[in-house]
Amino acid sequence: MRTWTFFKGHGTANDFVIVRDRHALLSPTPEDIRFICDRRRGIGGDGFLRVTKAGHFPEWDGDPDLWFMDFRNADGSIAEMCGNGARVFARYLIQENLASGDQLDIATRAGLVHAVLERDGRITVTLGQPTRRSRPTLIHACGRDWPAHVVAVGNPHAVVWLSSQAELEAIDLRQPELPVADYPEGGNTEFVCLFDETHLGLRVWERGVGETQSCGTGMVAAAFDHLSLTGDGAGSVRVTAPGGSLDVRVDQAGVAHLTGPAVIVGRGNVFLPCE
Amino acid sequence: MRTWTFFKGHGTANDFVIVRDRHALLSPTPEDIRFICDRRRGIGGDGFLRVTKAGHFPEWDGDPDLWFMDFRNADGSIAEMCGNGARVFARYLIQENLASGDQLDIATRAGLVHAVLERDGRITVTLGQPTRRSRPTLIHACGRDWPAHVVAVGNPHAVVWLSSQAELEAIDLRQPELPVADYPEGGNTEFVCLFDETHLGLRVWERGVGETQSCGTGMVAAAFDHLSLTGDGAGSVRVTAPGGSLDVRVDQAGVAHLTGPAVIVGRGNVFLPCE
Repeated sequence: MRTWTFFKGHGTANDFVIVRDRHALLSPTPEDIRFICDRRRGIGGDGFLRVTKAGHFPEWDGDPDLWFMDFRNADGSIAEMCGNGARVFARYLIQENLASGDQLDIATRAGLVHAVLERDGRITVTLGQPTRRSRPTLIHACGRDWPAHVVAVGNPHAVVWLSSQAELEAIDLRQPELPVADYPEGGNTEFVCLFDETHLGLRVWERGVGETQSCGTGMVAAAFDHLSLTGDGAGSVRVTAPGGSLDVRVDQAGVAHLTGPAVIVGRGNVFLPCE
Repeated sequence: MRTWTFFKGHGTANDFVIVRDRHALLSPTPEDIRFICDRRRGIGGDGFLRVTKAGHFPEWDGDPDLWFMDFRNADGSIAEMCGNGARVFARYLIQENLASGDQLDIATRAGLVHAVLERDGRITVTLGQPTRRSRPTLIHACGRDWPAHVVAVGNPHAVVWLSSQAELEAIDLRQPELPVADYPEGGNTEFVCLFDETHLGLRVWERGVGETQSCGTGMVAAAFDHLSLTGDGAGSVRVTAPGGSLDVRVDQAGVAHLTGPAVIVGRGNVFLPCE
């Protein structure tokens, strides 16, 4: 049996198991991650955050002393970025005194993420510059076709606008079919309605997962689409998903900032089967 | 913030958060239990096992020094018995050196449960005497009516026999409708097929939960129904659910014994919000 120390945290009900591995001694296998993220046979989480130093990653050419977010999906696969994961990662570093002050940089496979501890206790992270194609596409979901906007926030998104909150709540959300030409590797689908000019309602279907309570990049995709449809793409929008609300700001340089709660709910030891 | 020490364990993927409270100081509220059992905002579990001494329960008239299994459903409600929960509870007592030897008695709301640590490391618990009504009923599920056997293992069960494993796997399991006359407080539904005379396949829909990976009393109900249809109700049967296999033995006195794996996968501290 191997014993690893873990933390568990979440941002708007998007939850993660966090394991510190400063000296890169653990080398978790996909099997280890599937075990730990298994909600019934392990600890349980949407994803796994390994906390290590950037210098252990040959592909990282920046400051080797930065903390590196080695993010994995619950199925053990590698993903470049996770917006809520980065916010929970920052909370962990602050709470465990691994970062000082209210600003920190985090190294990720998608590059440098800047995190800010807001005065109200929420955590903001930068998520790069979203892009959006002017020509919409058609996706198939819930037995019909829907026009969708093709947005990228590191990962690909299809944003579908609905006419009302009632329509959003009524949707029987099942696996949407995205056109392969526009989404060669699939993508996440966001169904969105307008509460008012600065507040959106959202439900999300995540590629390879299903409907989830919250998706940081999906909320940025919806907000950026709205800001592009109503202006030049810059501005501030609140997005409310079933798991909670996040604030998205796109600055004049086109960089997205995602702000919201991030909580550490527990810590402990997990007992892994022998290799 | 309040910090409680917890353990997490499971039996055939039926999982529990365990909190020791020997001196009955914690008084967890339904809100506390919902928080801890929340799979995304808390630790996560099908149920909550509070480990305390029987003497703290006025309704207990036996040995006050026995360990008492204060079992709660994930929604915070009280339940009398949980077969896999009792097995995980026994594993916890053994692993934490709160019980000596390979046999122990556990006090529960359903009375005394006897637990045995088997030589192969599995845990057996007694689950009282199942009862079965000779006249079947009709339940409605998956768009049709099914004959069902009315079995009680402390809690009420509807056992539906299918003709093959293929039929069992093909069922699109949704909320079954049980006749109120036979199930005034609802019940669990087991769909069962015969692999061979001593081995059943099972899928279960748990009242108030949905389809689960495993259900200890449901597996006893299916086994007892089979043993009653083919004999006098006594004998041994293996039951395989999606979460794993359990062995059920009904002895000549009509008492059911449930045997299977029970694992502690981690321990730690959970940080509860202030009251």
